[in-house]
Amino acid sequence: MSYSVAVAGASGYAGGELLRLLAGHAEFDVRTVTANNNAGQPLVAVHPHLRSYADLTLSPTTTEALAGHDIVFLALPHGKSGAITETLDADTLVVDCGADHRLTDEADWAKFYGGEFYGAWPYGLPELLIENHEKQRSRLAGVKRIAVPGCNVTAISLGLAPGLRAGVIQPVDLVAVLAVGPSGAGKALRTNLLASEILGSASAYGVGGTHRHNPEIVQNLSASAGELVSVSFTPVLVPMARGILATSTARLAAGVTAHDVRSAWVDAYADEPFVQVLLEGSFPSVSDVTGANTALIGLAVDEAAGRVVTITALDNLVKGTAGAAIQSANIALGLPETLGLPVNGVAP
Amino acid sequence: MSYSVAVAGASGYAGGELLRLLAGHAEFDVRTVTANNNAGQPLVAVHPHLRSYADLTLSPTTTEALAGHDIVFLALPHGKSGAITETLDADTLVVDCGADHRLTDEADWAKFYGGEFYGAWPYGLPELLIENHEKQRSRLAGVKRIAVPGCNVTAISLGLAPGLRAGVIQPVDLVAVLAVGPSGAGKALRTNLLASEILGSASAYGVGGTHRHNPEIVQNLSASAGELVSVSFTPVLVPMARGILATSTARLAAGVTAHDVRSAWVDAYADEPFVQVLLEGSFPSVSDVTGANTALIGLAVDEAAGRVVTITALDNLVKGTAGAAIQSANIALGLPETLGLPVNGVAP
Amino acid sequence: MSYSVAVAGASGYAGGELLRLLAGHAEFDVRTVTANNNAGQPLVAVHPHLRSYADLTLSPTTTEALAGHDIVFLALPHGKSGAITETLDADTLVVDCGADHRLTDEADWAKFYGGEFYGAWPYGLPELLIENHEKQRSRLAGVKRIAVPGCNVTAISLGLAPGLRAGVIQPVDLVAVLAVGPSGAGKALRTNLLASEILGSASAYGVGGTHRHNPEIVQNLSASAGELVSVSFTPVLVPMARGILATSTARLAAGVTAHDVRSAWVDAYADEPFVQVLLEGSFPSVSDVTGANTALIGLAVDEAAGRVVTITALDNLVKGTAGAAIQSANIALGLPETLGLPVNGVAP
Amino acid sequence: MSYSVAVAGASGYAGGELLRLLAGHAEFDVRTVTANNNAGQPLVAVHPHLRSYADLTLSPTTTEALAGHDIVFLALPHGKSGAITETLDADTLVVDCGADHRLTDEADWAKFYGGEFYGAWPYGLPELLIENHEKQRSRLAGVKRIAVPGCNVTAISLGLAPGLRAGVIQPVDLVAVLAVGPSGAGKALRTNLLASEILGSASAYGVGGTHRHNPEIVQNLSASAGELVSVSFTPVLVPMARGILATSTARLAAGVTAHDVRSAWVDAYADEPFVQVLLEGSFPSVSDVTGANTALIGLAVDEAAGRVVTITALDNLVKGTAGAAIQSANIALGLPETLGLPVNGVAP
Repeated sequence: MSYSVAVAGASGYAGGELLRLLAGHAEFDVRTVTANNNAGQPLVAVHPHLRSYADLTLSPTTTEALAGHDIVFLALPHGKSGAITETLDADTLVVDCGADHRLTDEADWAKFYGGEFYGAWPYGLPELLIENHEKQRSRLAGVKRIAVPGCNVTAISLGLAPGLRAGVIQPVDLVAVLAVGPSGAGKALRTNLLASEILGSASAYGVGGTHRHNPEIVQNLSASAGELVSVSFTPVLVPMARGILATSTARLAAGVTAHDVRSAWVDAYADEPFVQVLLEGSFPSVSDVTGANTALIGLAVDEAAGRVVTITALDNLVKGTAGAAIQSANIALGLPETLGLPVNGVAP
Repeated sequence: MSYSVAVAGASGYAGGELLRLLAGHAEFDVRTVTANNNAGQPLVAVHPHLRSYADLTLSPTTTEALAGHDIVFLALPHGKSGAITETLDADTLVVDCGADHRLTDEADWAKFYGGEFYGAWPYGLPELLIENHEKQRSRLAGVKRIAVPGCNVTAISLGLAPGLRAGVIQPVDLVAVLAVGPSGAGKALRTNLLASEILGSASAYGVGGTHRHNPEIVQNLSASAGELVSVSFTPVLVPMARGILATSTARLAAGVTAHDVRSAWVDAYADEPFVQVLLEGSFPSVSDVTGANTALIGLAVDEAAGRVVTITALDNLVKGTAGAAIQSANIALGLPETLGLPVNGVAP
Repeated sequence: MSYSVAVAGASGYAGGELLRLLAGHAEFDVRTVTANNNAGQPLVAVHPHLRSYADLTLSPTTTEALAGHDIVFLALPHGKSGAITETLDADTLVVDCGADHRLTDEADWAKFYGGEFYGAWPYGLPELLIENHEKQRSRLAGVKRIAVPGCNVTAISLGLAPGLRAGVIQPVDLVAVLAVGPSGAGKALRTNLLASEILGSASAYGVGGTHRHNPEIVQNLSASAGELVSVSFTPVLVPMARGILATSTARLAAGVTAHDVRSAWVDAYADEPFVQVLLEGSFPSVSDVTGANTALIGLAVDEAAGRVVTITALDNLVKGTAGAAIQSANIALGLPETLGLPVNGVAP
Repeated sequence: MSYSVAVAGASGYAGGELLRLLAGHAEFDVRTVTANNNAGQPLVAVHPHLRSYADLTLSPTTTEALAGHDIVFLALPHGKSGAITETLDADTLVVDCGADHRLTDEADWAKFYGGEFYGAWPYGLPELLIENHEKQRSRLAGVKRIAVPGCNVTAISLGLAPGLRAGVIQPVDLVAVLAVGPSGAGKALRTNLLASEILGSASAYGVGGTHRHNPEIVQNLSASAGELVSVSFTPVLVPMARGILATSTARLAAGVTAHDVRSAWVDAYADEPFVQVLLEGSFPSVSDVTGANTALIGLAVDEAAGRVVTITALDNLVKGTAGAAIQSANIALGLPETLGLPVNGVAP
């Protein structure tokens, strides 16, 4: 294995998923895992599902612990990545699963997160359509800093970008409603994340444009559209541990046929190893992608409503976080993009 | 108890829920329960949760079994209510939980259901805003036939009608995405309704305007708007046995303030016993209304997206079906509208 | 309504369930609700499912708030009931849903709970078989203090007591394994109660006789058996918000027939309004009793293993806590025992 | 890849899981997949989570389809494996995930399954303790026929065998209660397997020694004990798609210490790659082993009850079926036993 790896924030769900995937990566060798509250504990005491790491113990998250690795994955709370990265070698590949380096506009950061702004890094969504017939992948080769997208953001961006880029849908009145599992909120001890509250129920949060993922969604979709878009985004918490099912809809552009619509999506993802457009009439389930780095997209045109509806399924912890981190790291390092990343889901 | 009652199709989920609620209704006396495949069995063999009906046995669903009651509740498969009702006395109150008599336009029936069309009945959604500053309630007093709305339809109609009636939202590009439990699909033996398929997953169906509830949604919202509306509706199956959480969004009308928006909804439901608009910043959970005839609505204005977002929670089997049936029957008979209908949910 | 009621600890799950049931009780009038952290908030802010209590606000849990009521229900953390009760009028009916007054042996209290021991109160499990062909019901009439049983304890006691009393099973090598929902653990902010941890999983706790309900189980079953019993009890947390399914097994006594076994259980509960033994070959589901004060028991003899197996389903928050509290209060006050208590479950 | 593989019954849950695992096996090359009702369909139409098999189409399950492979995995309904195997080459490795060849006693087969009995095959539970200080592994090298154990059987056998073999627990009054997910019952269209029935609920089945896994449990544990055992086994269906949490308890043998008990289990599995005994005070969760070929065992001695309690977690589709099949095939072929088998679970 060619690259030494440290994972900071290893005791959370994103950190755990990074480690699960890294265990199957032929070129990455996890040497260090860090945490704060759980420092000093064996990793398997915190993540009993990660039996292959029986020899690792959690260190405190310090520069000393993280220094000296080829790659550092950060799975820290928002606002914690900027300062620690400044202490790391410029030549280390740092992949941040937090929000600190996703937004390009400091005003967005101030409004939705607050605290010091450390600036945007190359954005780890390789399949995102951007200007000049390119994808974001082209901007990741050789980089030393990567900002991993938000999980909801990835689902909506993959679901709507092709239509915006091709001009078959309009850039206004975009609407996305996502069924999401509670692991996206992390291991936080909050009453609304208790099993008793979530079992047998569903609830929306961040309603009305207040969710932190909002500016990042606009940023991506505007990049794909080539103009500023407006989008309404509502996440709905449902009783599944992980996964996102995004229903993203948009108004049909004038004079566009159903065939034009389908072509836009099929063409956009024709060669993608991890994003697949399903056949007409087929729509994905979350369990199709559980544990996999796959995003599946189903597509329909509602003629009566004059809208396109896309259904995107992905695993918030894999393609939505840890898998995207590894995929982007592979690209940055010039490795095969698919290395170590499962494409089959765990179902049922 | 003043009224004798028969329930046809008592072995399904809607029939069971009718019986659960009727057990607490002071004026309704259930004398007859019918079914097809389960005829001859004790009711508690099919519904072991309905201990209070230990003496009832399921009869076959025939005119003979249903005749001679003051009220007949029909919980039959779509297409089965029309023919049997023709054999019942015109003076019997017949409340149909199926779709047979909901649609006013025969072409809609032909397109979305098919088979013989038996015509529309007075529509059992008392809170629906219609023309002349009235609600649908005004059309239910004294009637002898009632068509109970579809569960998804009720959630979307309650969520969007006030804004359309008041003109604070536009009647186009309406979008509704619903998290729904599998009991809405009934006890049908289909692979996609198996627990193994639904646990840990979420999936959309009827995508792109193909779901049968579509024309009924348009019918209601157009009645509220006073003009034809266009709406995109997507139901998402999630792992909770019952309940609906509807995210319904609409474009803000020009020159409308957030205060105007809130007033439209608050005014519409100010005196409603079963529909409540939550305080600003509050949004409902499905478990708030489990087992209750309550619909809760949260409301937000997303200025950046230029859209209103409403979150409506209701129990598909209660306010979405059986509760609506009893509420409408109470009105038709001149009884207190709330008789026998729980307002508190069973949570957690 | 004849009796004024206060509920202390109203913001938790047990307190909420008391209020849900009390809303349907014709003789009990809830005037005061108290809490600690949530004091000052409207009750519906904490329990949005309890719409009928729109006028109540949570007071701090003090003697002043609780004094002057006919009945005080305590739903406080263990160890908090003793001191506050000493400040209440001796003539007030105090019903404690906590553990403080369940155990008769101070050594058990010291070992499993610790802190000051305030002594046992009349025990609120009316159907428990005790000596002299009596049931615990006989000891509840007219009392002013009631200790509500633990939820797991009720399930096991109801499931095994008839066989022990009749001598058809042996009092040793009793084994009970319970599938339980997380609401039994309350609203505590603990990692293992997070939805992400519980969804899609199952886990045991209190393994090996360490769970606090152990001495109470032994106390009850020994009372039924007329001699000291030994029992192994393991609760297993599963992904359902509420409910208990108890599998309780025991060795057959020598010379006992399957008919003897069935008779023991059927006879014990023949006249019980809330406990029912199912027909041979039938076994209960948790959803049969969700929201109801019902306990259902299925029974089988495994000849090859030489053991009796009983399956008991109940709702931990109703027959396991709040329903038992109200049922016992009804008895203590000379009201009809079933007043205000639902017998039908909410299913599916 | 050295071995050509066919999977018969590939459209079910066990077949799907075999394919998911085989996709990661370096020496097994899946060339043929068969089914009955779904023959003619692309594999991904039936298993949309298995994206890596985009080129495979389901053939009918015939001798022609299965012949000519080095290995045939059978995931057929019980009673279907015997006849088809007789038509296959004696040199083909046939691994049967069904029950047809598990039982050694024809009378057991007749009583619990019925139909023609085709005789027992080498039993695919390598870790099972048998006579002469051996494990079942020793009987699998070089064999051409393997019977994969029942999933519940594996959980109970692993949980109790060490104590029986070491004599630290008694061979009578063994009791096992299992929380199990519905995927163990396959994709059968039965009302009790519908999501509406299982969500929010729990229910027992096969109560009182009637479950088909009973004779196989007795067979294994008797082999470990060296004498006939008696065991009471109850499976409880809970709302998780996959997984088993087995609570298996036994009476302590006379004069045995807690240290003796722990040593028996620790020694038995000290060198096992897939079975691990947790530290004192630790007990496994199902999600620790989801998707993995791992079985985790927690252990406690309840001195008051005089019993040992073991908690065993495994994935019914992996270590309980498909993983065991591949592990045993690896052994039979002389490959590294762990080849292609994940040891880390997918959690949360």
